Amino acid sequence: MKKIKIGIVGASGYTGSELVRILLNHPNAVIEYITSESSAGKPFADLHGAFRGLMELPLVKVEEALDMEVDVVFLALPHSVSMNFAPKFLERGRVVIDLSGDYRLDDVALYEKWYQKHVSPEFIEKAAYGLPELFKEDIRKADLIANPGCYPTSAILALAPIIASGNYVESTIIVDSKSGTTGAGIKPGGSTHFPSLYGNFFAYKVDGHRHQPEIHNILSKLNSKPFSVRFTPHLLPIDRGILSTTYVKPSQKIDLNDLRAFFSNFYAGQPFVRLTSSPPQVKNVKGSNFADIFPFYDEENDLIVILSVIDNLVKGAAGQAVHNMNIRFDLDEKAGLNLAPLNP
Amino acid sequence: MKKIKIGIVGASGYTGSELVRILLNHPNAVIEYITSESSAGKPFADLHGAFRGLMELPLVKVEEALDMEVDVVFLALPHSVSMNFAPKFLERGRVVIDLSGDYRLDDVALYEKWYQKHVSPEFIEKAAYGLPELFKEDIRKADLIANPGCYPTSAILALAPIIASGNYVESTIIVDSKSGTTGAGIKPGGSTHFPSLYGNFFAYKVDGHRHQPEIHNILSKLNSKPFSVRFTPHLLPIDRGILSTTYVKPSQKIDLNDLRAFFSNFYAGQPFVRLTSSPPQVKNVKGSNFADIFPFYDEENDLIVILSVIDNLVKGAAGQAVHNMNIRFDLDEKAGLNLAPLNP
Amino acid sequence: MKKIKIGIVGASGYTGSELVRILLNHPNAVIEYITSESSAGKPFADLHGAFRGLMELPLVKVEEALDMEVDVVFLALPHSVSMNFAPKFLERGRVVIDLSGDYRLDDVALYEKWYQKHVSPEFIEKAAYGLPELFKEDIRKADLIANPGCYPTSAILALAPIIASGNYVESTIIVDSKSGTTGAGIKPGGSTHFPSLYGNFFAYKVDGHRHQPEIHNILSKLNSKPFSVRFTPHLLPIDRGILSTTYVKPSQKIDLNDLRAFFSNFYAGQPFVRLTSSPPQVKNVKGSNFADIFPFYDEENDLIVILSVIDNLVKGAAGQAVHNMNIRFDLDEKAGLNLAPLNP
Amino acid sequence: MKKIKIGIVGASGYTGSELVRILLNHPNAVIEYITSESSAGKPFADLHGAFRGLMELPLVKVEEALDMEVDVVFLALPHSVSMNFAPKFLERGRVVIDLSGDYRLDDVALYEKWYQKHVSPEFIEKAAYGLPELFKEDIRKADLIANPGCYPTSAILALAPIIASGNYVESTIIVDSKSGTTGAGIKPGGSTHFPSLYGNFFAYKVDGHRHQPEIHNILSKLNSKPFSVRFTPHLLPIDRGILSTTYVKPSQKIDLNDLRAFFSNFYAGQPFVRLTSSPPQVKNVKGSNFADIFPFYDEENDLIVILSVIDNLVKGAAGQAVHNMNIRFDLDEKAGLNLAPLNP
Repeated sequence: MKKIKIGIVGASGYTGSELVRILLNHPNAVIEYITSESSAGKPFADLHGAFRGLMELPLVKVEEALDMEVDVVFLALPHSVSMNFAPKFLERGRVVIDLSGDYRLDDVALYEKWYQKHVSPEFIEKAAYGLPELFKEDIRKADLIANPGCYPTSAILALAPIIASGNYVESTIIVDSKSGTTGAGIKPGGSTHFPSLYGNFFAYKVDGHRHQPEIHNILSKLNSKPFSVRFTPHLLPIDRGILSTTYVKPSQKIDLNDLRAFFSNFYAGQPFVRLTSSPPQVKNVKGSNFADIFPFYDEENDLIVILSVIDNLVKGAAGQAVHNMNIRFDLDEKAGLNLAPLNP
Repeated sequence: MKKIKIGIVGASGYTGSELVRILLNHPNAVIEYITSESSAGKPFADLHGAFRGLMELPLVKVEEALDMEVDVVFLALPHSVSMNFAPKFLERGRVVIDLSGDYRLDDVALYEKWYQKHVSPEFIEKAAYGLPELFKEDIRKADLIANPGCYPTSAILALAPIIASGNYVESTIIVDSKSGTTGAGIKPGGSTHFPSLYGNFFAYKVDGHRHQPEIHNILSKLNSKPFSVRFTPHLLPIDRGILSTTYVKPSQKIDLNDLRAFFSNFYAGQPFVRLTSSPPQVKNVKGSNFADIFPFYDEENDLIVILSVIDNLVKGAAGQAVHNMNIRFDLDEKAGLNLAPLNP
Repeated sequence: MKKIKIGIVGASGYTGSELVRILLNHPNAVIEYITSESSAGKPFADLHGAFRGLMELPLVKVEEALDMEVDVVFLALPHSVSMNFAPKFLERGRVVIDLSGDYRLDDVALYEKWYQKHVSPEFIEKAAYGLPELFKEDIRKADLIANPGCYPTSAILALAPIIASGNYVESTIIVDSKSGTTGAGIKPGGSTHFPSLYGNFFAYKVDGHRHQPEIHNILSKLNSKPFSVRFTPHLLPIDRGILSTTYVKPSQKIDLNDLRAFFSNFYAGQPFVRLTSSPPQVKNVKGSNFADIFPFYDEENDLIVILSVIDNLVKGAAGQAVHNMNIRFDLDEKAGLNLAPLNP
Repeated sequence: MKKIKIGIVGASGYTGSELVRILLNHPNAVIEYITSESSAGKPFADLHGAFRGLMELPLVKVEEALDMEVDVVFLALPHSVSMNFAPKFLERGRVVIDLSGDYRLDDVALYEKWYQKHVSPEFIEKAAYGLPELFKEDIRKADLIANPGCYPTSAILALAPIIASGNYVESTIIVDSKSGTTGAGIKPGGSTHFPSLYGNFFAYKVDGHRHQPEIHNILSKLNSKPFSVRFTPHLLPIDRGILSTTYVKPSQKIDLNDLRAFFSNFYAGQPFVRLTSSPPQVKNVKGSNFADIFPFYDEENDLIVILSVIDNLVKGAAGQAVHNMNIRFDLDEKAGLNLAPLNP
């Protein structure tokens, strides 16, 4: 059986941990190294006790990893750190799958408006946007794959069929999203302090979140007819899961059955999109790579309402990254991703 | 000190319990009776162990209560049950504050479309809608007060200033609401079974919820310029709290500071509305009668976004009912409602 | 590759669902049927939406299943129902792994004291107690395997090394256990109603729980020196996981390092027991078949304190059942059970 | 009406906030100042948004507060900080109620073993231990009141009747306690990071927690017959509440009814102790000053098992502190403490 040698750069966060969880049971995967600057020398399980006995590989520093022979490198690093390392791994002939935001936008100015100065802007246009349901062919050929943001994954999958079809008025699409707390990362802080968040719920970054330009930028590739996106993220007091409720005004009336058939055709053959017949629940995709989508037509208001859910760490991060690897290396698309959701 | 004699009809649910919690520390309140059909004879604390030692009044049946002398009766009954009892108490000269949906809509046909056949439709137009911030004068004179629904309270308070001003285009207002589980009542069921809901989140009644016509019906009284309302309720895995995220297209551009000043003037002198300078959190109103509201203007999309939070059992039910009593009986508006939120 | 044909009796509950989750990725497993009396004819995923697209097998009634050819039948039925069906499947030559309590106690009188009249008592002594770490040889030869209770799994694994060694005084061992809510089953009820349990915590069945005699009965097989067991179960407001804190008075002083070495030897070669170097966390075993155990010696009080955690639906139910199947059918012990915990 | 002038030292934490919540509705309380070193000049509500509009007093530095005229000072400071300030306030004639651990132990050596060097050891013996149910007379006369720890409050109230009576064997009492996360304070950290703790549960400080000597030290005052205490704290994934499960071997058999009668007599006239007839629930005391206690006799094991619950921030901290103030200043014991639990 074909074996892919893998390096994971960034062990301490949730996406690094989730990559390990998935790759451990991937039939084609061989994890060659995992890096950590602060814990080099220690076994991976020292950082994530859940993996005791499952992954005891000693961590290495990234400088050391650069020249270790692998086929693919997953960068599980913060935004603005990734862009320093991606070029170095690309130079050495590795395929790079970057889980940060550094190569998602195909427009340097837009990136620099929302993030900061880009240190390797020449790679931005070489990167494929790693949303397999829309860009499989690009991914197959790319050496740098920019893994989508978690919110954008949920929103773009909900909206792509409508945008692609052009059945929308030239106005504002509303994306009202709610995310579990792993999306905020492993570093403790006031808004994710347990006593504060337990029993709580609130919106944040109401005046602008980096995922808004990503949603708009990617969807714009599907249609030249203009639209804008209003994006409001909220923090849910749960660990995993995103639900996006999206509202689009159609340019012509549509029948609910037709709408469902249309989504069904659009996603035919995509193994990780499930169209549901009732509003989807975040727990129904927990731990899995599924995106559950429920398109609805509100006849009274002539409004299309689409609900979509994903596990932000799987379809919204590590699972999608592995999916991209499978495509890039011509493996079975579902290899290692037959993860049944944890129920309940 | 002026004393008001009170009857509470319906002890077993959360709104009955919450009325007791609030009235226990109300300086003008004397609870004369609490009714329960299934637990008559038992002390109230047998139903709600939290009240052991605080409220041991033996429960009575409603038939028995009808002729017990009180000034005001709170009906903490399900929809469609209230309308059988309100007339009987009104006949006997009691002021009735109904916490069900039976008298909220001022249109019998609309009620019957969303609920069922009304058995006392002649009272519908006599009822005041008990949202004090908008209808204080009506409440002061009414003998039947229809206490607002929890979702409508959060949505109407968010939207009223805009609707009243007329600064909206004739289109669809979006109300994306998220509620804690006490809103679903005390009766166990599949969707509120702990293992199912813990770590979960989902929308429900996407094709129509009774609170949509209530929001539209009440807001319509503020302006004859048409609009429609899209309402999407979601179930949050917490016990108390509602957050509504509302989106309105203004008919003319507005400055954020002006928007805030406008809200501030609109709610001047209203003791339970707090305008916040950052997105409001449901936990900041927990256990209290406050509605925290954050109006925002998204300049890029020319869209007004208003976030509002309440405790669904207090401002969304029992607290607002007591506020209505205070107004109707000419007490200090805040009497018994100086409830500091539980923090955290 | 060797294939085992499997029948699952009882689809609607959490253990049936969890068996499906695990067996879906088991290399030797072929699920032939899943039964449900109330949902026969419907696909399994209609009962558990998380499995949409993964398990759409139409459910059959148990009467129909009786004569369907399989190697092993998992009974995921309530106590007192299982004992009606186990004999019928045994008669037809199936190996039966029963997840209920009906064959766990090897003493009919004891069973009937804690449960009810037994209808197939002759099978009680034929059953192996399916705790592989202690009874692997029995399991290998048995046609009826009584899968342990969830609390007993956590408590027996914590205590077995001490009891087997005889290093305890003849007195009362204390087992203070805390369980997540899936242990209470899928049927909604007052104590697992979300608003009641969220933010709550309490003990229950303080005057006697069926798992107390099971813990005592099984541990007694390891040593004839008497002891008694005090068992106090508590309900945790989480979905999955059990933590047991056990207290045993040693008959002679012991050194902490020796204690740890002793546990380490006792469980050498057992793939699912992990000894931890700090107090174990229930989330570190979530979704996996691990039991994490931390033995500690309180020198000041001359008391052994052992903390153990499991996922009640995996090591406490379905995972252990599959482990038993693997042993019985001479498969790799870990087949299908390489489940990394969901982190976080 | 008698008015007590109050200073609160330490605004930023949960106990400072909870003192404000309670004192806001206390009929005899006038909050003169609240201190904060880092936020001096800002209104209190800037630190705790829940208090917007309720408490906007500008914060002052403690040096400034020293000479502001008040009757009583609550020190809501960390351990080892309090002991620097208590003497200064005492010198100026204030009554000091200290919510830290600095004056709880009446033995300097014991304090220094578990905490650190004491800078004002001469005050240790002047301090009354502020558990009103046991030491009301001491509290009435003391100028320095050491408010009990949260775990000790729950454990001592459970055990005091048994210890005082002498009906226990000279052996180890087991206190297995479970606490909500507000007990860990407002400062974010790894173990209270939301994604880690949600759905989790674990024991900590298994090898020694400062509350163990406090429990033993205080209970020892009730009886000269020796005993030792094994204390195991666990962290519950909830915000508020402690449940302690305690196990004591009686020196003579006892009848369950007699045990209950005995507890009932012991706590006769104590307004905040409620004996329950079923296992107590932490949510039934949430936000209130109650301690709910359930004594049980396990006849088979001849073991007394007592379950007790409190809200750690109220009866375990700020509520008890206010109770102590009421006693010290000869106010109605219940003044300001008629707090009905939040249900649910």
